[in-house]
Amino acid sequence: MQPSALAMVPFVSVDNMMRLVNRIGVADAIAGIADAIEADYLRWPEFDKTARVPSHSEDGVIELMPTSDGITYSFKYVNGHPANMARGYQTVTAFGLLARVDTGYPILLSEMTILTALRTAAMSVLAAKYLAPKGAKSMALIGNGAQCEFQALGFQKVVGIDTVHLYDVDSAATEKAARNLSDSGLTVLNCGTAEEAVTGVDIITTCTADKQYATILTDNMVGSGQHINAIGGDCPGKTELHRDVLLRSDIFVEYPPQTRIEGEIQQLDPDHPITELWQVMSGLALGRTSDRQLTLFDSVGFATEDFSALRYVHSMLEEFGHYESLDMIADPDNPRDLFGMIQRAGSVV
Amino acid sequence: MQPSALAMVPFVSVDNMMRLVNRIGVADAIAGIADAIEADYLRWPEFDKTARVPSHSEDGVIELMPTSDGITYSFKYVNGHPANMARGYQTVTAFGLLARVDTGYPILLSEMTILTALRTAAMSVLAAKYLAPKGAKSMALIGNGAQCEFQALGFQKVVGIDTVHLYDVDSAATEKAARNLSDSGLTVLNCGTAEEAVTGVDIITTCTADKQYATILTDNMVGSGQHINAIGGDCPGKTELHRDVLLRSDIFVEYPPQTRIEGEIQQLDPDHPITELWQVMSGLALGRTSDRQLTLFDSVGFATEDFSALRYVHSMLEEFGHYESLDMIADPDNPRDLFGMIQRAGSVV
Repeated sequence: MQPSALAMVPFVSVDNMMRLVNRIGVADAIAGIADAIEADYLRWPEFDKTARVPSHSEDGVIELMPTSDGITYSFKYVNGHPANMARGYQTVTAFGLLARVDTGYPILLSEMTILTALRTAAMSVLAAKYLAPKGAKSMALIGNGAQCEFQALGFQKVVGIDTVHLYDVDSAATEKAARNLSDSGLTVLNCGTAEEAVTGVDIITTCTADKQYATILTDNMVGSGQHINAIGGDCPGKTELHRDVLLRSDIFVEYPPQTRIEGEIQQLDPDHPITELWQVMSGLALGRTSDRQLTLFDSVGFATEDFSALRYVHSMLEEFGHYESLDMIADPDNPRDLFGMIQRAGSVV
Repeated sequence: MQPSALAMVPFVSVDNMMRLVNRIGVADAIAGIADAIEADYLRWPEFDKTARVPSHSEDGVIELMPTSDGITYSFKYVNGHPANMARGYQTVTAFGLLARVDTGYPILLSEMTILTALRTAAMSVLAAKYLAPKGAKSMALIGNGAQCEFQALGFQKVVGIDTVHLYDVDSAATEKAARNLSDSGLTVLNCGTAEEAVTGVDIITTCTADKQYATILTDNMVGSGQHINAIGGDCPGKTELHRDVLLRSDIFVEYPPQTRIEGEIQQLDPDHPITELWQVMSGLALGRTSDRQLTLFDSVGFATEDFSALRYVHSMLEEFGHYESLDMIADPDNPRDLFGMIQRAGSVV
C-alpha cells in the first residue's frame, strides 16, 4: 500500500544539498539566499518572532529556532559543541523544516549544516551591503574553520571583495582555507597574527568557535572606518570582541531580545543603544553615515534567516529536483480512523 | 561517495511505525510506553523541563516540545488543526527526534502521529493506575476520533477495563470505533448521549477536538468515585469540562506551568490547588484516598512523555529493525572543511 501524496514530505539530504549547491554554485547560492533574507527582512513586522529555545549542557547547546510569517512556519534544530571537532564531529550540525500554517503539514525537511553555513555567509554579506565602507575590497577572516570559505566567496560575489587575509590560532586551518580558495580569483594572504590580518582591511569577520569569553579583537587592533562582522559570539558566555571595541562601535543587530542574551552586547548594559538591521534596510534607521565610523554587525543568527534559506531551497526543488520523499505524515483515508489504518496495514503484512 | 556512519540518522517512517506497532501489538506497545513513561516520571527532577513553544494561527497551532535528561535530548513537532478533518487532513500530525546531549547529534527521527496516539493512551492508563477507583471495569469514551481505540485497548490491557461506552456528536465516528474494537474482547456500547455514556462507569475519558471552550461534561453528569481522564482540552481557549466539575475534583497534572495555560484548569484561579502526578508516583503526594473521591487527570501531554515514547521506539529498533537511514548530518573528513566536502562532491558528480 503506497502512502498518499499528503503523507510525503520532500527531504533534502546532505548529499542532495551538495548536489544542489554545486549545480547553483556556492557564491550564487549565497547571493540567492541573501536576496531571500533581504526580502523577508523588508517585511520583518509580518513575522512571529521569538528568541531561540536553548538546551544547555556542559558540552554545548542544542537549540530550536521557530518562526512564521502567517503562511509558512519554519524551525531549525541546531547544535553547537566546540569539543566536537577534536572528536571528529562537526561543531555545528543542523536540519530544518518548513510547514504550512493553515494545515500544520510539513512541506520540506532539509539538512541545514551546509545550509546554515550558506545562510550565515548570506546574512553577513547582506549586512555588509548596508554597513561596510563604500568600495570595500579587502577583508580579514579571523577563524578559518567551517564558515570561512563561505564568507570569503559570499563577500567576493555580493560585496566585491578581492583580497582576504586569513588568520587562525591553528595554521592548519588557515592552510586548508587558502587551499580551498586557491581557484576563487581572490588574493589570499595567510597571516601569522590577528593584528597582521586586520590591519588596513575594510571588513573584519570574526568566526571562531570557542564557547567562552575570548578576545579576538582588542581596541588597539581596530581602526576607524572598518566594518566588523562578528559571527562567532552567539551564546551566553561566548564572545569574541573586547568591550572597548563595542563601546567605540555603532552596533547593528538582528533581533534585540536574542542578541542581548547571546551576542557581543551581552558584555554591555541592557539598554546600550543598538540599531535593528531591518530598520536600516527599510529606511527607518540610518546605517553607515561616515567614512570614519566603526560599524559592528553583532550577528548571532536569527530564525527568520533560516526561514528565508529554507524558502530558497524549497523554491529550487521544482527546477533541480534534488530531493527524496519521506513517508513522514500518517494519512489515513478517514482522518479519525488512525487505528483502522494501523489495523489494515497489519492485515496486509 | 557513501556518507559515513556518523552522517546517518535512523528514521522510522509511518509505514515502519505501523509495522513495528503491529509486530509488538497495539496494546503491548501502549503498555511498554507506559512503563517507559513511568520510569522517566520516577526521575522527574532529572529532566530539563519547559512549557512547549507554540505558534498559534487562526487555523490551529504548531508546537515544539523539547526536553532533556542530560544524556539524551528530544523534541516533538506537533500541530493541532481542528479544521483539518473536514479537509481530509489529520487534526494532529507529529514527528520527533532524539539526540545525544554530549555531541548534539541526532540518533533517531521518527514519525509521531501514530506514536503520539500511543503515548497519549499510555499516559492516560498510567495516570489511571494511580488514580482510578480500585477494580475499575467500565469506561466512557466521549469523542470517538483518532485517539479513541488506543484509549480503549490501553485501558483494557493495563487497567483491566472490560466495558466501554462510546459517544460522539457524530454517530459515524462511534460506529467506526465500535467496528475497530469488535475483535478486542471488550464489551462495547454505543450511546445516544454523553449522559448515557458516563452514567455508572468507573472512568470517563474525554477526547474531543474542537478548538474552543466546550462543555462535554457538566456537573450533574459526574458522580462521586469516578475518575475523569480529560485529554481533549490542551490549548488556551480549548476546554471540555464545566468549571463546576473541576471545583468538585481533586486535580492531577503533568507539568503545572504548562497545564495552567493549556489544561482544563485555565478556567480556575492560577493558585487553585493541584497535585503533580510525578509526586504521586514517587510517593511524595497522595493520589486517590477514598472510594467517593472524584479524581481528574487534566492531561495536556508533556515533552517528557514524548521523550519516553521515542526512547521506547529507539530501544525496539535493534530487535525489529523497522527503520531507514537518513543522510542528515554533514560529516566531512575534517570537521573544519565543510567547504572542501562540497567542493569534492562537485568534482565527483
